[in-house]
Amino acid sequence: MPEPRTTLKDRVRAVHEEAQESDGRVRAVIDAVRPCIDGGRFAAKRAEGEIVTVEADCFTDGHDVLRVLLRWREVSASASAWQDVEMTAGINDVWQASFVAGPPGRYAYTVLAWVDAFLSWRHELERRNEADDIALAAQVGAALAREAMARAEREDRDALADWANRLEQDAMRCSGDPQAQTLKALALDPDLAQLMMRYPDQSRAETWPNELPLIVDRVRARYSTWYELFPRSTVSGSEPGRHGTFKECEARLPYVAELGFDVLYLPPIHPVGREQRKGKNNALVAEPTDVGSPWAIGADEGGHTAVHPELGTLADFRGLVAKARGFGMEIALDIAYQCAPDHPYVKAHPSWFRWRPDGSVQYAENPPKKYQDIYPFNFETEDWRALWNELKRVFDFWIAEGVKIFRVDNPHTKAFRFWEWVIDEIKREHPDVIFLAEAFTRPKVMHRLAKLGFTQSYTYFAWRNTQYELTEYFSELAQGPGREYFRPNVWPNTPDILTEALQFGGRPAFMTRLELAATLAASYGIYGPAFELLESAPRETGSEEYLHSEKYQLRHWDLEHPDSLRAFIARVNRIRRDNPALHSDWSLRFYRTDNEQLLCYGKSTPDAENQILCVVNLDPHNTHSGWVTLDLEVLGVDPALPYQMHDLITGSRYLWHGARNFVQLDPQRVTAHIFRLHRRVHREQDFDYFL
Amino acid sequence: MPEPRTTLKDRVRAVHEEAQESDGRVRAVIDAVRPCIDGGRFAAKRAEGEIVTVEADCFTDGHDVLRVLLRWREVSASASAWQDVEMTAGINDVWQASFVAGPPGRYAYTVLAWVDAFLSWRHELERRNEADDIALAAQVGAALAREAMARAEREDRDALADWANRLEQDAMRCSGDPQAQTLKALALDPDLAQLMMRYPDQSRAETWPNELPLIVDRVRARYSTWYELFPRSTVSGSEPGRHGTFKECEARLPYVAELGFDVLYLPPIHPVGREQRKGKNNALVAEPTDVGSPWAIGADEGGHTAVHPELGTLADFRGLVAKARGFGMEIALDIAYQCAPDHPYVKAHPSWFRWRPDGSVQYAENPPKKYQDIYPFNFETEDWRALWNELKRVFDFWIAEGVKIFRVDNPHTKAFRFWEWVIDEIKREHPDVIFLAEAFTRPKVMHRLAKLGFTQSYTYFAWRNTQYELTEYFSELAQGPGREYFRPNVWPNTPDILTEALQFGGRPAFMTRLELAATLAASYGIYGPAFELLESAPRETGSEEYLHSEKYQLRHWDLEHPDSLRAFIARVNRIRRDNPALHSDWSLRFYRTDNEQLLCYGKSTPDAENQILCVVNLDPHNTHSGWVTLDLEVLGVDPALPYQMHDLITGSRYLWHGARNFVQLDPQRVTAHIFRLHRRVHREQDFDYFL
Repeated sequence: MPEPRTTLKDRVRAVHEEAQESDGRVRAVIDAVRPCIDGGRFAAKRAEGEIVTVEADCFTDGHDVLRVLLRWREVSASASAWQDVEMTAGINDVWQASFVAGPPGRYAYTVLAWVDAFLSWRHELERRNEADDIALAAQVGAALAREAMARAEREDRDALADWANRLEQDAMRCSGDPQAQTLKALALDPDLAQLMMRYPDQSRAETWPNELPLIVDRVRARYSTWYELFPRSTVSGSEPGRHGTFKECEARLPYVAELGFDVLYLPPIHPVGREQRKGKNNALVAEPTDVGSPWAIGADEGGHTAVHPELGTLADFRGLVAKARGFGMEIALDIAYQCAPDHPYVKAHPSWFRWRPDGSVQYAENPPKKYQDIYPFNFETEDWRALWNELKRVFDFWIAEGVKIFRVDNPHTKAFRFWEWVIDEIKREHPDVIFLAEAFTRPKVMHRLAKLGFTQSYTYFAWRNTQYELTEYFSELAQGPGREYFRPNVWPNTPDILTEALQFGGRPAFMTRLELAATLAASYGIYGPAFELLESAPRETGSEEYLHSEKYQLRHWDLEHPDSLRAFIARVNRIRRDNPALHSDWSLRFYRTDNEQLLCYGKSTPDAENQILCVVNLDPHNTHSGWVTLDLEVLGVDPALPYQMHDLITGSRYLWHGARNFVQLDPQRVTAHIFRLHRRVHREQDFDYFL
Repeated sequence: MPEPRTTLKDRVRAVHEEAQESDGRVRAVIDAVRPCIDGGRFAAKRAEGEIVTVEADCFTDGHDVLRVLLRWREVSASASAWQDVEMTAGINDVWQASFVAGPPGRYAYTVLAWVDAFLSWRHELERRNEADDIALAAQVGAALAREAMARAEREDRDALADWANRLEQDAMRCSGDPQAQTLKALALDPDLAQLMMRYPDQSRAETWPNELPLIVDRVRARYSTWYELFPRSTVSGSEPGRHGTFKECEARLPYVAELGFDVLYLPPIHPVGREQRKGKNNALVAEPTDVGSPWAIGADEGGHTAVHPELGTLADFRGLVAKARGFGMEIALDIAYQCAPDHPYVKAHPSWFRWRPDGSVQYAENPPKKYQDIYPFNFETEDWRALWNELKRVFDFWIAEGVKIFRVDNPHTKAFRFWEWVIDEIKREHPDVIFLAEAFTRPKVMHRLAKLGFTQSYTYFAWRNTQYELTEYFSELAQGPGREYFRPNVWPNTPDILTEALQFGGRPAFMTRLELAATLAASYGIYGPAFELLESAPRETGSEEYLHSEKYQLRHWDLEHPDSLRAFIARVNRIRRDNPALHSDWSLRFYRTDNEQLLCYGKSTPDAENQILCVVNLDPHNTHSGWVTLDLEVLGVDPALPYQMHDLITGSRYLWHGARNFVQLDPQRVTAHIFRLHRRVHREQDFDYFL
């Protein structure tokens, strides 16, 4: 049996001990620098322009005074000079400092602390009252100033000498209380302090042994609005059975842009395998006209870097990407690392697959379920380096085609080490690439994927319906320790997930689930046009699969249907765009209601200039009313003054007073209030309604 | 300015990367091995014989089955072979295994995990139903058995070959469903599984990169009962002004033993400085007859390794240590690293002190407070190595004299690096030594001292009086993350702390505070005879200092005073000794009461054989009654059956029914119930009282 890595451990310890033992006089202690994921093994995540606040517990023995610096740098840039920020002490020995996250890339930070002889002296002097003590202290101060001269720049040396002389001479002459008080004032002169603090003695500084890693992403990593559609289903109903093309996708762009989405995500666009192809509604045997699942990737025409011929050419795809950009939208591609039996890899790289004793390739299975149309890669292959490089090449290929966002299919069924490597490699060169992990699996597995590098993660939102469930889950996402690395992207539906809530809740349920997604999470998405057209029939009772799922057949959607939620969705997305409070997750706070069918929560910008408060009726069938209790202190509202609640859905304005206010929501009319809170009320006559 | 340790960090990362990159096929993931203090920087603590439970989050991609081993060893012993314990999976990917802590010393543990090909195959086979699949699987199983032969010991190779042959042959012959089911049963034979699990392929095992440290102490580190007395005040009142001796201390041993204490802690026993000696009640100028503070250590007669001549000789001290042992008691010494101005160190090692510009030694001060009778060591001295070695020699000297417990005075005013070094050095040679940190300071500083090695720590208990305060604080101590390293030792009084509760609460307050200390914490102590003799006069109003404090003068105590709590204390300590539930802290649970003056809590042994429930009246002035609500499920009590509550203070037995029961406590009679819960009631006529 292999020994555990004693050598590794011993070597790490030796490195640490050597560094630590060097000087027993180091008296500053630094503890628990944070954010810190798994002891620095993984990076915290921020978006460009966000404030990065670093905390550490710092102290020393006795009463001496510490100075503590936050030290940070961009690791990826060639000019990676350290920047120092003075940390300040709060209660309970917690020190804090901040910096603003720069352009996307890899950053690092650490903390440095030392017992500061000058500040300790100054702190003691402030409390000294006896003339003798003050005179002695002034002499000590003079000596400190002289020591600092050796560390000072030329132009400051004279000033320090000057201070030393004055302190010394006045100390000599000090013989009474009034003189001592003058001397004390001189020694405490802020100019001296400012000068001395420029030249501290850091020779016995303690440094946090790790540089902690930080990934800075572009803003879309934190705030994004996704629309998923099958490009092959973009043909109108007047041409039944015709396969859609990238050109038709282009024609759909204005529609998606009008709805307010900024990421258009396409399921795999590659040739679809013919061997073992699935038929409509996942039938085991396909009809000759069946188009198969886009996730059964690869056929004679090519694999993961090829385009399905019926969709068009690579040039057509490039055109789509460029056109989307014109609408402020990005194309996101689906990366599904698996092969149809006729994928070119199977012949070219047989060692990348598992083989069965009967000479066939092992298809995907989770007994008794079988997925004969899909061959998984064998990440235990001896040829793993070649496999890793080829899979990375797939990303590189599409990045070269202008794609910077990837939705990764089932990452939890591929080796974790591979993901950590490939994401790191790609982001080194392209720090603006975004990876969304489509892993609907156990919590710790989802968190590991987020830690090892995925930019965003799918969530359990689809199955969180009640007040309790939503409050618990979104509080965890917004305030739990995982928020440092796990960025939720929430979806009311996907091609795999037609929830019971949508199957049975009718139009109000679609509206509610969209409102929740759009306001609870800074990143959300819908699978359309199924969503806006209220598609709600399951393949069979108890199933979350869609009947006539686009995964297995072409569909023709009537975008102009009068029941479409397009205008409503456009309005909600417009509210999102206009209100920066909704562009991030961390400010989310839930408020108490006395009706468990009413969910109340709010979000705010750090400066509280933009404050959104939502009240959602979770019951799609019945009108509900009740009292919501806000925390006026958190909201910065004067409890003695009225404040205006501007409903951004209906346009109505309400005047609220105090913490408790009444709300009533009829799901047949309005399923939720999305209020903007205005703390200063200008003209009462503007309001429609007084409560 | 010094750069942060980029080299250190880079070297650590390089070591890790080298180890990690070796094989991309390692698919097992190990996360968050625990207990883990600051990423393994500090050791968790356990006592000999305790069960050490280690947990880790382990998983892999896909559906394959993991095997996970906890690997531990004693580091200090020469025979430090690794021991492996199979970990088992619980919910949420948490794996767990335990081992029993061996003799005091340093231990280490880590975790090893791999995707187990055999168990994955077996797990899939269990769910296979089709004959073809079963036949193919049997062939795969045969191949696995053949592979295992290379790893197997000679005597098992034939058995494996045998299994491989049988599986292969039966797979060949398998042509129908009944045969397939027989084949499946054969392949799932537990004998095969047992054999295969002995020879797993660990070549792609993942190992947690740290060995996590564990300190195992002797049981007294967790469960101890302390009595502090001033040896110089052991003379009876008939000889006023005479200085007590070690011989008189010896004579006091039966008394302390009868009270039920097992640690007798003596304030410093060294020569007391004469220069700047403090007088009675901390007077700045001493009378010629004043004895001074024992903490002003050192005079012509010697310093930290000398004995105060008036107490006796070193031989007398050795005699005391030996006699105490005969009573089942240990002597604990006070280690106060500071010097009186006439301590021999001051002349011999001037560089160990700070000097003022006027040529005098810097005494201790915290402006405007001055402690002219005490010189602190300067831990920033260039001669720090010599200072460290000398301070360590002090411990070594007393260890050689038979002392294994040290109460360390104000450790938070000495360098943290020194403590970490000296405790580690001493425990390497003497793993049975116990260090109690007397640091009444900020929480993070106290925790740091515990982390860096102190065995036990003083607490804020003295100032926690209300139901809320006691519940919060002791829940944190017993269940918070700090419990892994912070072992509380709680004191109702010390020579420095006469709380308001004792000043104003009278006899009932003394009883209550003792009961709380003795039952809330496995380690507690009192400063006597001041405690049992109800000494309660402060030096002045608002002060926590004793009037006529023994710190500055001799005292004569009337141990036979009829008001003495000695019998009561003996009873409480007897209850502690007899009830193992009170020998550890972690099982503490608080229960709800409907009267905030009543505090209810319980402790239990892991097997629930010994269960103690306490109800304490926190108000020393008034009778209180109310209902307490137990958690019968936690206590293992059948809600349909009565259970007996045996009051170990009064001897009364009560029959309780259900979760809610009524309690009334008159502090003039009984301040608390300390119940032992008996779940099986034998004879109802035994009970005094039915509620």
